[in-house]
Amino acid sequence: MGQIEVPVVRNILQANERLAASNRRRFQEAGIYVINLMSSPGAGKTSLLEKTIDGLAGQLRMAVIEGDIQSSHDAERIRTKGVQAVQINTEGGCHLDANMIQIAVESLELENLDVLIIENVGNLVCPAEFDLGEHDKVMILSVTEGDDKPLKYPLMFQLSSVLVINKVDLLPYIHCDVQLIRERTRQLNGNQEIFEVSCTSGSGMDLWLEWLKKKVQGVKDQLSRQGEA
Amino acid sequence: MGQIEVPVVRNILQANERLAASNRRRFQEAGIYVINLMSSPGAGKTSLLEKTIDGLAGQLRMAVIEGDIQSSHDAERIRTKGVQAVQINTEGGCHLDANMIQIAVESLELENLDVLIIENVGNLVCPAEFDLGEHDKVMILSVTEGDDKPLKYPLMFQLSSVLVINKVDLLPYIHCDVQLIRERTRQLNGNQEIFEVSCTSGSGMDLWLEWLKKKVQGVKDQLSRQGEA
Repeated sequence: MGQIEVPVVRNILQANERLAASNRRRFQEAGIYVINLMSSPGAGKTSLLEKTIDGLAGQLRMAVIEGDIQSSHDAERIRTKGVQAVQINTEGGCHLDANMIQIAVESLELENLDVLIIENVGNLVCPAEFDLGEHDKVMILSVTEGDDKPLKYPLMFQLSSVLVINKVDLLPYIHCDVQLIRERTRQLNGNQEIFEVSCTSGSGMDLWLEWLKKKVQGVKDQLSRQGEA
Repeated sequence: MGQIEVPVVRNILQANERLAASNRRRFQEAGIYVINLMSSPGAGKTSLLEKTIDGLAGQLRMAVIEGDIQSSHDAERIRTKGVQAVQINTEGGCHLDANMIQIAVESLELENLDVLIIENVGNLVCPAEFDLGEHDKVMILSVTEGDDKPLKYPLMFQLSSVLVINKVDLLPYIHCDVQLIRERTRQLNGNQEIFEVSCTSGSGMDLWLEWLKKKVQGVKDQLSRQGEA
């Protein structure tokens, strides 16, 4: 079984890398900043998106690609916010890949956008391996999942530029040491930005939004420098 | 990419089915009841195991197989309870398969056990597809994950005999409608047993333990009937 599986998985990953590079060029030409948002089921990806849309309203033009195994529940939540949302249904698949993004992007006018957030399938394992062409992988860990998660799902922590620790409003009621999450994450990835937020109370959202706006501006600055050169 | 992937995945699943059938015969011959325990990361699989070990102490002989991507953190937690625990590290793999279980079982004396619980990799998607030879798939959903999970991860709900709704002690602090989880689950799987528990407070554990003991007795009864026949 292993002898069959390994080379095929490698072919799939290589094919994915090529399509991801093509997506990345497309995003850079359009001057749009792109995030691949990942977490366990129920850690708060859609809630962070909703709060982010509210926080950026009138400042940045945003669109969302929603990845789900089935249903359009999350895309409907996003559309009620007045933001364009494209739904990808993986029909059983456990992660998004670059090909799915290439197809989904066809229905967006990228040149009229500043930021695109791709909400991946809820899964702390498989999505980490598939580059979508994003600028940054952003992962969410909710404190209710426990402080041992960096030890148990290290790849996601290693590859993400940002860790958003969510549901901090629940800390008084559970056993979870946020300092320990930070230490364990640092051992895997010394460069990760870490935000502590509550999508319910809104605490910590200001720092996250400030970081996001800087990132969008960075892509715009790069594009205008290229235009001048 | 799809043309390469589909037939290979089918071969892997067929090979897995054969090994799962072999495991199932081995478990039945030994008269041991086996659970495949699945959930998202941090929903409380290891906590339910710890509470179950405490609740069955002196009544049933139990062993645990711990599936993790890496680390032996959970197996160490279980061993401090005085129960035999075998660690499987999948080294990046997102689910356990029947072959891994066949190998892990070699280091257990099944004839001296009443119940074996296999804790799968924390993932609400991929593990559902791989039969390990268990009697029952038991899934945990923590209320902090939200009441939309049956809509978004239906296969796990369809295939599990039991749904354990965990962390009910946190219900006063979050937005989660347990009745809605029950209704959405019933639409996918009318035969699922549902327990509401808190591994922190211990509430609801009595009904879960009672159900588990009946299941173990059922396997023993079947074995003795076969012996008489």
